[in-house]
Amino acid sequence: MENFELFGNIEQGKNFLDSIKNGQFLFSFVISYTETCEIPGITFAGADKDSIQFTPPADAEYLHYGYCKTIDKIPMTPDGKPTPGLLTKTALESASIPHFTINAGSKIPPQLPFFDASMTYGKNILNQDAMTDSQISHAVDYGRIIGRSMASLTDCLVIGESIPGGTTTALAVLRALGYDAKVSSSIPNNPVELKNQIVSSALKRVDSDHPYSIVAKVGDPMIPFVAGMLSSASSVSNVMLAGGTQMAAVLAFASKIGFNPENTAIGTTTYITGDTSANFTSLVKEIADIPAIAVNPGLENSQYSGLKAFSQGFAKEGVGAGGSIISSMIKTGNDSSKFLTIAEKEYRRLFTSL
Amino acid sequence: MENFELFGNIEQGKNFLDSIKNGQFLFSFVISYTETCEIPGITFAGADKDSIQFTPPADAEYLHYGYCKTIDKIPMTPDGKPTPGLLTKTALESASIPHFTINAGSKIPPQLPFFDASMTYGKNILNQDAMTDSQISHAVDYGRIIGRSMASLTDCLVIGESIPGGTTTALAVLRALGYDAKVSSSIPNNPVELKNQIVSSALKRVDSDHPYSIVAKVGDPMIPFVAGMLSSASSVSNVMLAGGTQMAAVLAFASKIGFNPENTAIGTTTYITGDTSANFTSLVKEIADIPAIAVNPGLENSQYSGLKAFSQGFAKEGVGAGGSIISSMIKTGNDSSKFLTIAEKEYRRLFTSL
Repeated sequence: MENFELFGNIEQGKNFLDSIKNGQFLFSFVISYTETCEIPGITFAGADKDSIQFTPPADAEYLHYGYCKTIDKIPMTPDGKPTPGLLTKTALESASIPHFTINAGSKIPPQLPFFDASMTYGKNILNQDAMTDSQISHAVDYGRIIGRSMASLTDCLVIGESIPGGTTTALAVLRALGYDAKVSSSIPNNPVELKNQIVSSALKRVDSDHPYSIVAKVGDPMIPFVAGMLSSASSVSNVMLAGGTQMAAVLAFASKIGFNPENTAIGTTTYITGDTSANFTSLVKEIADIPAIAVNPGLENSQYSGLKAFSQGFAKEGVGAGGSIISSMIKTGNDSSKFLTIAEKEYRRLFTSL
Repeated sequence: MENFELFGNIEQGKNFLDSIKNGQFLFSFVISYTETCEIPGITFAGADKDSIQFTPPADAEYLHYGYCKTIDKIPMTPDGKPTPGLLTKTALESASIPHFTINAGSKIPPQLPFFDASMTYGKNILNQDAMTDSQISHAVDYGRIIGRSMASLTDCLVIGESIPGGTTTALAVLRALGYDAKVSSSIPNNPVELKNQIVSSALKRVDSDHPYSIVAKVGDPMIPFVAGMLSSASSVSNVMLAGGTQMAAVLAFASKIGFNPENTAIGTTTYITGDTSANFTSLVKEIADIPAIAVNPGLENSQYSGLKAFSQGFAKEGVGAGGSIISSMIKTGNDSSKFLTIAEKEYRRLFTSL
């Protein structure tokens, strides 16, 4: 396991890796939406403002088909850097890890068979409550149902997400729940000030310490849904939350509704754990006594600037890339160098065929 | 395996049972709709004409929650005989077999998390084509995608369905594909004449021997979707088509689009294989060189008339009851007598609480 760095409960991290090393993985990809992403400058998860809403379904389509149906090209930043889904797809495909897409409030449904959680997208937390309390109950309930079913089919349920603007809602939920969170983002010069302003404004509406009320006021649909999944899934199998600060927010909310920490880990990239603008590893430690597992995908050695960019702070995480790469390396025995080779092959395929 | 009777390729049936005897099962429940069911007298899958459309989602909800959300009571015949879903639920729950609901053209979506195949219901084949050729392509494609994913998670994918009126469309598809099919139904005095009239009328529109065209003109959405599932799933795992004549129609269409017969079996009840008004076992033999496995659920020994009715020709099959009971008995080691005990317990629970 020399490919991975462990943080938090390190002993349990070793046990977690040991218990899944000969097991089967299932990747579930949760797509959602918060209108908070429409605030100018908050996210680059899309080529332009109007295309951001298509990023979650397009990520799902790309993972599935190898190309998108909802949009012409794969999701990318305005200057053409590809979605972290490229890393996820490379990881899952090279290890034959099956995956399902779950629509938990995406504005646009993906053009593929998906699990429908019958949820609607979240409102812009700058201006108004994201959801109602009953929408939170629904999200948790449906998350619990899907989490239990999926966990019963695998040794390790890996959960990734795509919700543009989600780091801001995650920041708001973490702060409202009492954590001194600094949040990473898909933009290298993380717009910390803008995010802090939005969060401060949103937090003024919080008038209760009930976690459902907090997530309803300043969160997004992904957080209660994935927390519900974790809650039930961790009682039957191992669960790896694949992501950075957004999964920390999931973990914080899940701590309120209950989950089994002994079967739970966060899986991410060293681009997140090494991000000095955020405080990811200490935050996870503060929230729950679980391990965080980080992989260095080795993209700094890439010959392609579009891949190298991930190691330079662009889209450091997302689409469950880190957790997928960890799962893939465990299943195949690949190291970072081998992973880079196949990621570059996928990069060439995309940028030749598009 | 003394609980089961084998038909068709008996040697392969023994191998099939042997290869799943220590394995894990996954039940997928495909709900759909054909307006053909609105022809008076064609089905009793609902308390009255208006409630038939709610039967598929209500069956899904009952399997999942133990009660329905779309309607007040569980689906039943006009005179109060319960859905065969009662048998399915008892079977799955007693063996802890996980299940997923797939919406492949239900008129009403179920109130639970489900796989959405983005399909619409079929038209009444008495009057018009059921679907377009492109809808058939979509159904097959999405079926293939879901079938492959689900099969990769289990040793045996069991596929059941709920589509009221589906025996009539199955009859039409089988005849159009050249089989001399007699079709069973959920009504003891099977309305053979009415079905034959509808089918004869529908077959007049068939002007091509292309299987997509045939199913588009006289079939229903379930048939191409489940055939797609079988097509991909049978290349990665064992598949048990749980049902009677409707699954024979699936098998007939799947024979045209390709599937792996070595990993495929039909699982049903002896109420189907012993039905003298139909010719199920010889029909399966004519279509494909696969085994049919039949279980006697032992309901003729029940103290409750509502359960005894299944053995007397009411709703002899449906909601994948037969295949679920077979899977459950394999996993738990229960025999018919033990199964009857737990089915009666569920019957009491339902008819005390409702």
